[in-house]
Amino acid sequence: MVNAGDMNGSGNLMDFLDEPFPDVGTYEDFHTIDWLREKSRDTDRHRKITSKSKESILEFIKSLLDAWSGWVVMLLIGLLAGTLAGVIDLAVDWMTDLKEGVCLSAFWYSHEQCCWTSNETTFDDRDKCPKWQKWSELLVNQSEGASAYILNYFLYIMWALSFAFLAVSLVRVFAPYACGSGIPEIKTILSGFIIRGYLGKWTLLIKTVTLVLVVSSGLSLGKEGPLVHVACCCGNFFSSLFSKYSRNEGKRREVLSAAAAAGVSVAFGAPIGGVLFSLEEVSYYFPLKTLWRSFFAALVAAFTLRSINPFGNSRLVLFYVEYHTPWRRKTTRLGKYPVLEVIVVTAITAIIAYPNPYTRRSTSELISELFNDCGALESSQLCDYINDPNMTRPVDDIPDRPAGFGVYTAMWQLALALIFKIIITIFTFGMKIPSGLFIPSMAVGAMAGRMVGIGVEQLAYHHHDWIIFRNWCRPGADCVTPGLYAMVGAAACLGGVTRMTVSLVVIMFELTGGLEYIVPLMAAAVTSKWVADAFGKEGIYEAHIHLNGYPFLDAKDEFTHRTLATDVMRPRRGEPPLSVLTQDSMTVEDVETLIKETDYNGFPVVVSKDSERLIGFAQRRELILAIKNARQRQDGVVSNSIMYFTEDPPELPANSPHPLKLRRILNLSPFTVTDHTPMETVVDIFRKLGLRQCLVTRSGRLLGIITKKDVLRHMAQMANQDPESIMFN
Amino acid sequence: MVNAGDMNGSGNLMDFLDEPFPDVGTYEDFHTIDWLREKSRDTDRHRKITSKSKESILEFIKSLLDAWSGWVVMLLIGLLAGTLAGVIDLAVDWMTDLKEGVCLSAFWYSHEQCCWTSNETTFDDRDKCPKWQKWSELLVNQSEGASAYILNYFLYIMWALSFAFLAVSLVRVFAPYACGSGIPEIKTILSGFIIRGYLGKWTLLIKTVTLVLVVSSGLSLGKEGPLVHVACCCGNFFSSLFSKYSRNEGKRREVLSAAAAAGVSVAFGAPIGGVLFSLEEVSYYFPLKTLWRSFFAALVAAFTLRSINPFGNSRLVLFYVEYHTPWRRKTTRLGKYPVLEVIVVTAITAIIAYPNPYTRRSTSELISELFNDCGALESSQLCDYINDPNMTRPVDDIPDRPAGFGVYTAMWQLALALIFKIIITIFTFGMKIPSGLFIPSMAVGAMAGRMVGIGVEQLAYHHHDWIIFRNWCRPGADCVTPGLYAMVGAAACLGGVTRMTVSLVVIMFELTGGLEYIVPLMAAAVTSKWVADAFGKEGIYEAHIHLNGYPFLDAKDEFTHRTLATDVMRPRRGEPPLSVLTQDSMTVEDVETLIKETDYNGFPVVVSKDSERLIGFAQRRELILAIKNARQRQDGVVSNSIMYFTEDPPELPANSPHPLKLRRILNLSPFTVTDHTPMETVVDIFRKLGLRQCLVTRSGRLLGIITKKDVLRHMAQMANQDPESIMFN
Repeated sequence: MVNAGDMNGSGNLMDFLDEPFPDVGTYEDFHTIDWLREKSRDTDRHRKITSKSKESILEFIKSLLDAWSGWVVMLLIGLLAGTLAGVIDLAVDWMTDLKEGVCLSAFWYSHEQCCWTSNETTFDDRDKCPKWQKWSELLVNQSEGASAYILNYFLYIMWALSFAFLAVSLVRVFAPYACGSGIPEIKTILSGFIIRGYLGKWTLLIKTVTLVLVVSSGLSLGKEGPLVHVACCCGNFFSSLFSKYSRNEGKRREVLSAAAAAGVSVAFGAPIGGVLFSLEEVSYYFPLKTLWRSFFAALVAAFTLRSINPFGNSRLVLFYVEYHTPWRRKTTRLGKYPVLEVIVVTAITAIIAYPNPYTRRSTSELISELFNDCGALESSQLCDYINDPNMTRPVDDIPDRPAGFGVYTAMWQLALALIFKIIITIFTFGMKIPSGLFIPSMAVGAMAGRMVGIGVEQLAYHHHDWIIFRNWCRPGADCVTPGLYAMVGAAACLGGVTRMTVSLVVIMFELTGGLEYIVPLMAAAVTSKWVADAFGKEGIYEAHIHLNGYPFLDAKDEFTHRTLATDVMRPRRGEPPLSVLTQDSMTVEDVETLIKETDYNGFPVVVSKDSERLIGFAQRRELILAIKNARQRQDGVVSNSIMYFTEDPPELPANSPHPLKLRRILNLSPFTVTDHTPMETVVDIFRKLGLRQCLVTRSGRLLGIITKKDVLRHMAQMANQDPESIMFN
Repeated sequence: MVNAGDMNGSGNLMDFLDEPFPDVGTYEDFHTIDWLREKSRDTDRHRKITSKSKESILEFIKSLLDAWSGWVVMLLIGLLAGTLAGVIDLAVDWMTDLKEGVCLSAFWYSHEQCCWTSNETTFDDRDKCPKWQKWSELLVNQSEGASAYILNYFLYIMWALSFAFLAVSLVRVFAPYACGSGIPEIKTILSGFIIRGYLGKWTLLIKTVTLVLVVSSGLSLGKEGPLVHVACCCGNFFSSLFSKYSRNEGKRREVLSAAAAAGVSVAFGAPIGGVLFSLEEVSYYFPLKTLWRSFFAALVAAFTLRSINPFGNSRLVLFYVEYHTPWRRKTTRLGKYPVLEVIVVTAITAIIAYPNPYTRRSTSELISELFNDCGALESSQLCDYINDPNMTRPVDDIPDRPAGFGVYTAMWQLALALIFKIIITIFTFGMKIPSGLFIPSMAVGAMAGRMVGIGVEQLAYHHHDWIIFRNWCRPGADCVTPGLYAMVGAAACLGGVTRMTVSLVVIMFELTGGLEYIVPLMAAAVTSKWVADAFGKEGIYEAHIHLNGYPFLDAKDEFTHRTLATDVMRPRRGEPPLSVLTQDSMTVEDVETLIKETDYNGFPVVVSKDSERLIGFAQRRELILAIKNARQRQDGVVSNSIMYFTEDPPELPANSPHPLKLRRILNLSPFTVTDHTPMETVVDIFRKLGLRQCLVTRSGRLLGIITKKDVLRHMAQMANQDPESIMFN
């Protein structure tokens, strides 16, 4: 044992873990994990399994199972995330239609399912199939007229309010962590922060149920962000079944990164976009192995969803994107009454949304219509162009045409819907219900884009001779596609909100299948990023993380100031010296006093108070456990026993009590930098190695300590001092 | 100055750089760069520009230009890479056809361009347009018959031989670095290795020209890998125009990563695949900023190529993928005569390839045909099914049909072509010409896949009642698509060779536009990776890097052994102690002797030989330059002058010569670990921070040093000792 103690700080820790100290190696809530330590614990575990595997066939099989458990977890996550997404889609479909009417043949059918088997052949007629009854038809037997309209309007609002009320109550009572999109918190968790219960089973259940309710209620929010949270909850659940992941916070985060990819995969039907989103936006530590695993999980999830086939068309869910919004509002007075807030916003949304056809339907349907091009058979109001009766072309070749009355009406309605959507979206932000940001941002961009597109199209029709049109448009040919403008607008708006670039483009073309539009989409993504960055570097998730004060060290922030480690470390000038342990001169009582008086996570161990040469670092938790354990079991350990971290006990007077050996809990390889190290290097080290703290030395003497929080505080200070410098990154 | 010396090791270096020591800060050929140092030099440069920008409008504009220079470089790379790829495509098209005949109306037209304006309407007739003459028609006025065939055969071989001879001679004489695919070397360069001239202007020029020659000669190789090399040469060229990139090896590598993405973007017409390839396969240090820049460069390159429109169909280049192969063969006897080797392989290729229609045409055309589905109007031999004359279905709805005579012939020819391709590809590997691996691997996979596909299809036709077919195939309906089998086969084969996963799938669907086949493609990619990994973890690029012994620290290799820093550091037990400098007791002569006797890159500086407390690290080059400079300029510095690294000169006897102050070249923040640090942590630190060396201490005392080469040597040793352990990663 002494020999092993000789070898390796973290190796000792593992030996130590096998002894009955159950809590060693776990972290407290709202603390940061130490990535290097987690990694080395996993390597130890892995080495143990490998060496055991040579002993017997059973152990060999066990080691194989362990090696494959990563893929098994991915498979399970993919299956569950895909299933949940499918169930949510089906339920939302049904409940959205329930606001307007009910299916007489089977009340659990949505409007589309109800009329699916109807004999009517055109879409319009099929929508009016006899088995589907609007509430007014069912209750007062009227389908047209003012009173029927008012009754339907009233019931629409009532259903919306009851869904919203049920959702906010469930969130409040059972799972407060289920509100919001969850992406900012998941980013923070993946960066190494512990938020217990955020990915728990209750959150999973309540978020799934309330997500159906709020989306069905017609609020201006989306299900995509929350679906990422739901998928991460699945990931957390399955990783708790395998000791490889449940007992190692670092490995668990690899699973969660992959689960986030699976979440986006089912939210948008975009498996590759999901992997890229996890890489670009969410993850902190993303080794190539996780890339492959994420890919696999995203694949299984997409495949499962396709098998469930919620829309009966064997395609993945197109255009059901949404809104990621903070789950905590900090300033408004209404924010103190979350249930009332939800009710008020839902009522306003329902009252204003119903009369306008572009806000009454679900946002994803709206986006889908805006993206579509006007084929000759299209019945949409947006496609009401004046046709030339003399035309002899085939139906598919569409000439350019002047806009008809329907298009002008649609333009006005779209303009009103755009204004309403922007305003209500701001208010829906941060209510205490699950809510996503993707769909509303895309809808805003698509509406603006479609309007611009129609404008340019009409300009081109009436002014063929203008220089900008002359080279592109032959007279009589349709040279402007308003649907493409809508698509580019949606991408640009979403890009501006989230600052995604590559993953955005991939998601957009997985969503639309439009590989040929990759160049305008890429141009839109890059431009929107440039413009948005001119107003501020932070995307919505980073802004939210900042707002909540999470200790998140963003890989995108560059630190370019000329400060040194000595400027940041504690103790600062004039502060009392650093609390340290000596290797062989402190008593148990001294240490217990030190632990009681301070709340540091751990203490550096030095040779002596005079020389201050650093020999290691001891964790607070482990010290407390070791002392408790020694007092209970070891004979002769009393308050004035000497604690020693050296290999051999110090020479003590004959009558002194039995000393306490603690070398096994000493981390012999603490991370150190010199006091002259530039802070940019220190920031880099914290970011890349995922450290919790780092000791500062000069010529081997311990001077101070820098924790992750010190680094974040210093970065915030420097950014406030010199906000201009950020411009030139 | 003393004050600044107090502040910051790397800051000093910059002050120092402004003085006339031109070579400080550059690296020698075949050395490794220090990423942390490059990064901190860039931050210093940036800080200087930012502070100057407040002084005048001119400086402000300069600082803006500097901030945007990254995007400008990307734009230029995209434009040049796209243009070169377009020119190469056009030239290859023309020269490939030149082997068979010539266009009479304009000799610089390819076959397709020559017959483009012909009035014939069917493809077959158009191929035989009168303006295009085969050599036999032109020379002996015969288009059919044995003598015409032999003449055409002979001239085909002659053209191939002359192209290949010209190519290998150009490579030999002007740019030996132009051979091979270049991807392994680019990986190594991006990881921080210096290979001067590898990305030079001559390499760019010669590689572009010879690439056209070898592809046209019909050898079993592709242009995609070499195009990545060409794009990186463009990147290197443009980065030499901006001091921000030319004077900083770290920043230059950011540009090269983006250039690699642009290269893949034009090679496959897959901009997003290019970015992912750069991320997954090539790059070492890939911050998010580089992700966005790569994305932009790839976009510009794809757009430029599309504007040149080499294939006259306004699509990007589909199916012109190829073969990445080592540029140096180590073992064969023929390898000593590279020109002869190329001639022999070309002759064999041409002789065997001509008679078989599947090897005579270009590999990309072959792949394109194999991927295609048999429409009702398809004239390919592969689509020669027996049609039922009683059939009344519309032409697009293809029933299942028995194979006709053509299909059976095609199967035999494909089988022979497959065997030939596999063998000749192995021999073409590593010849001294530019050569890529993508296209031949894809061709091999596609041939095998198509054959399996046809087999399954016929099985399904003849045995509808088998359980595996019963659920999928209604009698009379076509339920097996052999083209899809070919596509999946190509993906699987390429995945097995390169071990790409995510980037492979993205490239494949950007290439085919087939978003709906994403699930089989993903499954193929994951399966081929699993199977290939069972035989060995290394892809072709890593194997090649290993073969050439480049110091490449692969992010995919995991180190799981239980060794400590103390086991790896030098000096080892029994070796003479580490060569160190003391802070204030060595003379100039002592140091000069030490420099002469050793070839270390630098020396640790300690307080004194007795205490061995580390205070910093001095680079060899900078020591030499500083001494040289001091001897030339500083009065009184002679051989027995004391050199001191402290802030104040040591107290010296009255008559001693003038001491030499060297604190400015001292790096006050050298990287240290303790001797107990597990090697897995050390490997992680080297990998993530891009270190060149790391000092080992115990309680503040210097014990030894670990360099990147020590780490690589140790990893190789441990892998040899215990090859099994890799299985369980």
